[in-house]
Amino acid sequence: MSSFEDVDTEETVTSLHMTLYHPGHQRSGIFQSIKFCNRETLPTSEVVKFGRNSSTCRYTFQDKQVSRVQFSLQLFKKFDSSVVSFEIKNMSKKTNLLVDDKELSYLNKMDLPDKCLIRFGDYQFLVEKEDGESLEFFEIQFFLSIRPLLQENKWLPQKPTPECGSCSPCSTQNNSPMEAGENEW
Amino acid sequence: MSSFEDVDTEETVTSLHMTLYHPGHQRSGIFQSIKFCNRETLPTSEVVKFGRNSSTCRYTFQDKQVSRVQFSLQLFKKFDSSVVSFEIKNMSKKTNLLVDDKELSYLNKMDLPDKCLIRFGDYQFLVEKEDGESLEFFEIQFFLSIRPLLQENKWLPQKPTPECGSCSPCSTQNNSPMEAGENEW
Repeated sequence: MSSFEDVDTEETVTSLHMTLYHPGHQRSGIFQSIKFCNRETLPTSEVVKFGRNSSTCRYTFQDKQVSRVQFSLQLFKKFDSSVVSFEIKNMSKKTNLLVDDKELSYLNKMDLPDKCLIRFGDYQFLVEKEDGESLEFFEIQFFLSIRPLLQENKWLPQKPTPECGSCSPCSTQNNSPMEAGENEW
Repeated sequence: MSSFEDVDTEETVTSLHMTLYHPGHQRSGIFQSIKFCNRETLPTSEVVKFGRNSSTCRYTFQDKQVSRVQFSLQLFKKFDSSVVSFEIKNMSKKTNLLVDDKELSYLNKMDLPDKCLIRFGDYQFLVEKEDGESLEFFEIQFFLSIRPLLQENKWLPQKPTPECGSCSPCSTQNNSPMEAGENEW
């Protein structure tokens, strides 16, 4: 059984792949509490918080520049759709959030495109959704990029997402899913 | 200082007035854990859950027909708006939720109109938003209606929301803000 299947029903689950980049990670270990390549299964009811505060956020960044809660993601189902989508809300009073070219101030929210680049400060997160059937659970899987995901206002193109086996240790190998080349977008 | 003011900044806070009706309340005390007329101040970051499970829901209904979490409300700020709004999400797998005439299945969400009627099963909730300035806090205040808020597919008209002083005890007095008469809507 693939890890993409729901244990009880063998339904496939929607998966969110997040490729993280910050120029200071290798020096200061900003992402040290993130388990890269690990697939984590979460209930669809969860509001997933990202930020500095480990008591309120599921995923934390070791960086005093980050707000206690920087942003949240939550799952929803569009009307007349069989697949689930995600909504993002900026929870930071001091830092605006960019989703592709859309700027979110504090408490602004938007539906997340199936593939998009989230940015705040020096952080760049490439988010890609892979559709599944389950309405009970979804998965999040993180990858680390050692190269910027955005350069000169263009996205770098994307190679296929690496398998987990090539991810160990993600933080020291040049195994980013993002490589220079033609721009797909 | 009015209770609508934020203690620290003296900003006004957005207030959500919810008038609840269920035909079985007086017989079975469905709303017995709701403090009627009391203004409760909540942080804008809170996802407010309504349902049967008292460990996950802020507001609970004593009714086995209700889902553990029936629906959630959360605050957000529209782009280019100075006031806050609310989003509702149906968290019940077994019961659809009606917001005015829009039907929400499990995990469907929508932005809540400033005044609307929420229905599920025999429950009818009239929700009215009063705008404030604070981005830190908002208020929820509940009223009880002993008469249906919707009859023959028409809203009953509305008198001004009663002051708290006239609400004690809400559950036994005929002090509903909803009275029969001409339909404003």
